[in-house]
Parts: sequence; C-alpha cells; structure tokens
Amino acid sequence: MRALRYHGPGDLRLEHGIPEPCCSKTQVKVRPAFVGICGTDLHEYSTPTFIPDQKNTHPVTGESRPVIIGHEMAGTIVEIGADINNKSIKVGDRVSVRPTVCCFTCPSCEEGHYSCCATPGFLGLSGGGGGLSDYICVESDFVHKLPDTIGLDIGALVEPLATCWRAVVRSGIKNGDDVLVFGAGPIGLGVIQCCKAQGANNIIVAEVAVERRRLAKEFGATLVFNPLESDIVRETKKATHREQGADASFDCAGLEATLKAACLATRPRGVIVNVAIWEKPIEFNPNLLVFGERVFYSVLGYDKNDFEGVLNAIESGALKPGSMITRKISIDRVVEDGFRALIEEKDKHVKIQIDLLK
Amino acid sequence: MRALRYHGPGDLRLEHGIPEPCCSKTQVKVRPAFVGICGTDLHEYSTPTFIPDQKNTHPVTGESRPVIIGHEMAGTIVEIGADINNKSIKVGDRVSVRPTVCCFTCPSCEEGHYSCCATPGFLGLSGGGGGLSDYICVESDFVHKLPDTIGLDIGALVEPLATCWRAVVRSGIKNGDDVLVFGAGPIGLGVIQCCKAQGANNIIVAEVAVERRRLAKEFGATLVFNPLESDIVRETKKATHREQGADASFDCAGLEATLKAACLATRPRGVIVNVAIWEKPIEFNPNLLVFGERVFYSVLGYDKNDFEGVLNAIESGALKPGSMITRKISIDRVVEDGFRALIEEKDKHVKIQIDLLK
Repeated sequence: MRALRYHGPGDLRLEHGIPEPCCSKTQVKVRPAFVGICGTDLHEYSTPTFIPDQKNTHPVTGESRPVIIGHEMAGTIVEIGADINNKSIKVGDRVSVRPTVCCFTCPSCEEGHYSCCATPGFLGLSGGGGGLSDYICVESDFVHKLPDTIGLDIGALVEPLATCWRAVVRSGIKNGDDVLVFGAGPIGLGVIQCCKAQGANNIIVAEVAVERRRLAKEFGATLVFNPLESDIVRETKKATHREQGADASFDCAGLEATLKAACLATRPRGVIVNVAIWEKPIEFNPNLLVFGERVFYSVLGYDKNDFEGVLNAIESGALKPGSMITRKISIDRVVEDGFRALIEEKDKHVKIQIDLLK
Repeated sequence: MRALRYHGPGDLRLEHGIPEPCCSKTQVKVRPAFVGICGTDLHEYSTPTFIPDQKNTHPVTGESRPVIIGHEMAGTIVEIGADINNKSIKVGDRVSVRPTVCCFTCPSCEEGHYSCCATPGFLGLSGGGGGLSDYICVESDFVHKLPDTIGLDIGALVEPLATCWRAVVRSGIKNGDDVLVFGAGPIGLGVIQCCKAQGANNIIVAEVAVERRRLAKEFGATLVFNPLESDIVRETKKATHREQGADASFDCAGLEATLKAACLATRPRGVIVNVAIWEKPIEFNPNLLVFGERVFYSVLGYDKNDFEGVLNAIESGALKPGSMITRKISIDRVVEDGFRALIEEKDKHVKIQIDLLK
C-alpha cells in the first residue's frame, strides 16, 4: 500500500509497497479519507520529539523510524475483527479515529485516562500505523461513527477539536461566563468555538497576527486584541463582570508572557487552562496563582467522551468548524503544499488536509 | 490599655495607655487570652510586607504603623454590640477569632470568599486592632465559640490550623489516599494532622531538620525523609499504590526544589496544593504539570467553614494539636523569648504563645 513515512528530520517519503496491516480480532481496518496536518507534525518534521528513533522504540508499538505519519483522520471501515460483537459497527461505516496509543495496563489506563498512560503515544507519531496510508488498523473502541450529516473532512477535524473540547469541559465554565483565549492558531480557534458551544458570554482573544484575529471573530470571539498593542489584562478586566477578570483563561500559546498575563487577567478563584506543550522552563512567580487562589489545569489529550461531545456538538450545529479547513492537498504534495504553506503563509491557513481519495 | 505595637522593622513596643477600642453595634469586644506567634510575624518583624506604612494606609482599616500585632488569638467576650441579635453569643463566651480583614463589598467578598478580597488583610497586621492587647473589637460573624472541652490556648491554634484544613479540603483527598507534605514547620505539621483527620492513608513527609522530622511522626506522618539524603520522588513512588506517586502533595515550603519534586512525586491527575507565599520568581517548566495533567491549587486563607471544621475535629478528637504549643511566654518578652527562640532554636519550637492573662 501507499504510506507517507518519516525517516528522520526533514525526511518524509511517500512509499509504495508498504505491507498492508493485518486486522486483529479486536480491531477494525479503516481506509483513511482525510488527514489533517497538526502543529505537532510540523514540529516533528524538523525536531522530532514524539517520533521514536532506533535507540528508543515506543514501548507499546515496539516501533521506531520509519513510522507512518498523520493522526487527525477520518475514513471508512473496510474490515471488522472476528471478535467484535458490537453491532453498531459495520463495514462501510464512516468514522473518526481516536489515535491514542496506550498500554491499557497502567493505573491511568485502567481508570480510563488513556491520555495519562505511563507510556503514552499517538498513531501517526509513535508507530502502530498512521493516517497517511491506504489502511490503518485500530482497536474498535477507538473509532467514532460519523452521523450522516457530517462529512469525512469534518470528521478529520474531530481530533484537534476534542483537545479543545476537553479543555473547556475541564475549565468548568458555566453559561454566561467570560473567557480569555491566548493564541488563535488551530487550537485557539477550536477553544473559541468550544467555549461558544458550551455557553460562554464574552470570548476575548489575544493574538498577534491580524489574519488570525479576523478568524477568531469569525469563529465566535466577541473581542480581539493584539497583545503587542493593547494591555490585555486591562482590556479583559474592563470587559468582564465588575472588572474582575475572566472566569477562565486558556493558554494556547504556552509562553512565559501568556501564562503571566493569563494569571493577571483571570478573576480570583478563576482557572487557567493550559492547552500547550512548553519548549523550555520559564521564569514564573507562583504568587500569581496563589494571590486570588487561581487554579492551574492542563489538558494533554482527550478521551472517548470528548470525541462524542464534539460529534454531538457538530451534529446539533453548536460547532460549525468547516471553515477551519483552508486547503485540501494530495498525499504526494504534503511538504510542498502542506508544511511549507503552514510555515510560510501561516496566517492564511488554519487546517490543511490531505485528501487521500484524490 | 496595654498593646504590643509594631512601629517599624525591629521596633516592637509594649505600650500602656493605648485607647481601648469601642465596640460598634455589630461587633463584639474580646479580651484575648492566648496569642500565637506566626512565621508571618517573624517575617514582618524584619521585612514588613503586610503591615502598612505611613504612605500606604490599609484601604479597609485606614490604618498604618504603628499597628497592634497578633492574629492567632482566642479570648473571652466582654461586650456585645447593641444590634447583635444572635442569641448564641453572650458575654463570657470563650471564642477563637477569625482575623480576616476585608471590604465586604467587592465581588469576592459578596460571594463570601473573604480571603480573595480585592483589599485583603488581617487583624494584627493590617490595623483594626490585634491580639496582643487587652481588648479587640471584631464583627460578630468572625468569632467562633469554643466548646467547653477546648481550652483558650488550643483556641489560639485554630487560625493556623484553619489554613491547613482548607488546604486539605481543597485537595479533595478521599479516605485512603496517599499524601506527600513538604516541610514540617507549623503549617506542615498542621497539614499532616488535617490529612490524618480527613482520612489519608500514607502521609509522607520531606523535611530537612531532624527534630521536625520527629515531630512530623508524632503528629501522624507514616514515613519521613530528609530530602537532602533521600530521593523523595523515588521514595514516594515506592510507598504509594502501584508506585504512581501521591494523590496529593502539599507544598508548605514554597521553594523551586519543593514545587518541582511535588510535581514529579504526584500521580497523573493528582493535585499539588500550595500552602506558602513565594519570596521570588522561580525557574519552572509547566510541562511538569502538563504531562500527567496535574492540577495546581493554592490556598491563601480560610473561611468560616474551615474554622468550624477545625473546632469540630478538635472536639471529636480527630485533631489533637495541643503539643504544637512548645512554650508560653508573657507579653513583655515577645522578642526575647518568642521571636529569638523561633529563629535561633527553630527546630525545638512549633508554636510559641503569649499568655496575656499571666
């Protein structure tokens, strides 16, 4: 079969004749239709963090480079494992794939918190197959059936949106609460939509890039600021109930400046939700959280409920993420039309998808 | 009346002829019997942080130096304000005083979260009177009646224990959970006791000083380590369920090293509760919280429920804090027998109280 495999930094190869994976008794085989490019893919392309090298095979998949990439995917079921008795899954079903790789045996997995597995990973990064191939086999519990009204391209948006959904659920915001979002890249835009879908009142956004500020408004932001030009803490206080600050702030940038501003712009006893991976240690005064007894949550992944939450919200119309897809490309142009566009024209693009049926 | 007043760094004066405060219609007048010395008092003595200077009068009390000190206090009611209809309060009642100073009008106060007041303060630091005087007048809602079985000296321990109580309530630990406590000073020892009272299983303590480690065991620690000699992260994991780490860690030290170790020694989705004020910014990698989706809570004060929780736990025998009092001194020897002993012989002392009736 075809597969786009990562051999090392800057070395992605579209290969033919890769053996088709075998569907075990508890798995389903999916033919991916659309796969989104994630910021993590870009990051891994130059500086691998998640993708295991030969010295460090992934403890669950047992694989190392080359690995098939692509973890934001939706496709069609083409085969069902012999032991699967779940009547709601059948060949031909259109599904979004939850690409969690986990051991199923550590305490976190046993509690169902797969994203906190002691040996975490992702299909499309950690081995076990990836979306950018003709076929992938996954445990049946990790496919989520798409309602008839949801297209396969939208189905491939569910994975990034599930992270955002989980962040907003974790924040505990109530109807009418005011929120502040740092960063309007794909994750920030997802958080904005999920905040709106979950009943936020003011959705204030801090974003440097002008085009992303425009997109933020399009997706539901009520106020947008360029933090280089406006005092985001003051503006947030001005906009919120009794000038207390946001009920919840979402740090989708993961910078020293955004975390500090998030603390200062959040009301006493409010929450800061981290939706970013940090590149390095920062200078931070914990008193920013302590005074006001603010809470710091972080979100690393999602679980089954988050995928279902997103799918239900799309079906009901509470989430309308379609215009996040700014380009569709073919599998033989991933670097040229995908990665380069996301780096060189990053303000123009939110989500670039590979159309595998093209 | 007599009062011990703070005039500036290193300048505490026992003064006579200070005007007795007038009991307003909504206040009660208390004659303090015992007042504990807090680490904050020691810190303020050399480096004032909370005590307002002449240029910055406290916005609620309108006072600046000199102020009467002492905020951990219990005493006897000697007068009741004319408008107080609460039949459960009467002259002669023995009470613990909740020394919160707040505006009662900001959003946090209106929600009853007085410790998050926009202009917070403490009696005994911010003006409004203090425990180290013959009389103090406080709003009637801020006195907590002592049951007959609780002595006035124990009553003066309720304030520091209420902070600890609140930290343990905030952590959300359940019966049988494993906890890790950094620091076995007065707050750490209080947290140990409150964890025990609230059903913790393993109570692991990291403390450098040998005598404090002994006290930690006396108050309920099940395992104590000198973090300079033992790997506290490894030891905690070894001691906890499936080597996952503590369900909750309490940082009562507030150091870069303790926060880092707290993150590493806490299980995925566990909580870190900060019970310290930070002196300066630290270098910190938020990924320590993000990977494992750990939660960071902080506790700054207490509310009515925490005072009641501590009093009920003492009455039921779940808390037995009496041996925290390691010395009782007279008001004319506070610096000599109190502050100096706490600095020079700090491992020997937990709580030194001033006996005002001596």
